[in-house]
Amino acid sequence: MCNTLRNLKDILWILVEDSTEPSWVVSNILNDCGVPFVHLNIPTPQSEKPKAREPFWFRPKGILQRNLGLQWLRQNLILGRNKGVLYIADDDNSYNLRIFEEMRGTNKVSTWPVGFAGELPWEGCVTSKNRTQIVRMWSVYKPERPFPIDMAGFAVNIDLILQHKNAGFDYKRLRGMQESQFLLGLGLKNWRELEPLADGCRKILVWHTRTAEPLLTLWHELESQGVISPPIDDWP
Amino acid sequence: MCNTLRNLKDILWILVEDSTEPSWVVSNILNDCGVPFVHLNIPTPQSEKPKAREPFWFRPKGILQRNLGLQWLRQNLILGRNKGVLYIADDDNSYNLRIFEEMRGTNKVSTWPVGFAGELPWEGCVTSKNRTQIVRMWSVYKPERPFPIDMAGFAVNIDLILQHKNAGFDYKRLRGMQESQFLLGLGLKNWRELEPLADGCRKILVWHTRTAEPLLTLWHELESQGVISPPIDDWP
Repeated sequence: MCNTLRNLKDILWILVEDSTEPSWVVSNILNDCGVPFVHLNIPTPQSEKPKAREPFWFRPKGILQRNLGLQWLRQNLILGRNKGVLYIADDDNSYNLRIFEEMRGTNKVSTWPVGFAGELPWEGCVTSKNRTQIVRMWSVYKPERPFPIDMAGFAVNIDLILQHKNAGFDYKRLRGMQESQFLLGLGLKNWRELEPLADGCRKILVWHTRTAEPLLTLWHELESQGVISPPIDDWP
Repeated sequence: MCNTLRNLKDILWILVEDSTEPSWVVSNILNDCGVPFVHLNIPTPQSEKPKAREPFWFRPKGILQRNLGLQWLRQNLILGRNKGVLYIADDDNSYNLRIFEEMRGTNKVSTWPVGFAGELPWEGCVTSKNRTQIVRMWSVYKPERPFPIDMAGFAVNIDLILQHKNAGFDYKRLRGMQESQFLLGLGLKNWRELEPLADGCRKILVWHTRTAEPLLTLWHELESQGVISPPIDDWP
């Protein structure tokens, strides 16, 4: 993520760690990166953590973490004075740098198609022939949602965040409804109000890739026998 | 990978695609990236492709692709005139930019520990107290190998590549032996000759992360019913 954001100017990286304390390993990444940052942290409550053998899509992730980031914006920015655009980035998605430049022009909420989202090769907006107006959403998972899009597929003007202080995320929502209820909370009605980017929703500039769990089979055997690794500096 | 390499100066990105023709999608990434590149391609033979339900570690990957990259170096560079260091990078590993700067000083072959390699939290070199000499290798999978390291954990001075024209990779090798037989082919005897980087093998600057297969369950159902996606520009 640092290597991607280092290519951009005029950004602030708000990183919210899922932990009771900011970790050394993440602090080091941020301090060495050279991108202006805010390092926050809040742990996921035990009751909301993924359980063994649950599929990865079973529970919403990053709910309290995203809300803490929104709270930081509302406590530190002043409506009308501070200008900017919010994008909620997963650290394992794959980004074409063009999307970060394009989203700077967002008036209210902009959107674009996302590769490998919604169990499809791509999911998201489709525009009219002149590519200026969104005419439908290509989505198969709950397509009747007011905003059938992935978290990686939209950006919000900061003014909206500061004007609608209650918009956020919540564990108590139906699956797939986080994006829709957040955008409803920002005062939008449905996908027809979104501003199309990426050449009128014709280019895939973000892929919803996922990092696999590391293979640690040998290690788990050794660990149970009391084996420890040789020392490493700054290992968490 | 482009976003990472864009942060570096004085590099040449040799990308070898596993395909019968260079694809548009990869060509576009390279052309838009701004990093000097060579785009090669060679398909994996049918007999060596992963089969359904084989675990990902069952077969060696990228054998012919790496060999084609080595062939390009040997055909286009002149020993003694062209100077440089070769690093064989996976596109889904995670890189601290420091490792690319450190490996520029490689005399013959340099090495460093790799996170999440060899089914361990990290695997690789361990140095003496003054951190200048490698005294052992922390490895549990076939630790008796002459070089018990991951492909992501070493860099080679180009002179060695040009001097040893037969060093390369081969499908007909025991599992885990690609790195060792390549380095033996370059004239090294064992891990004691490697040059330690990363503060005497004390920092993890490369993680062997892996990108998961995308979840396309819904799509496979639709595809079998003849459904097609709306059009996208430059979709492969």
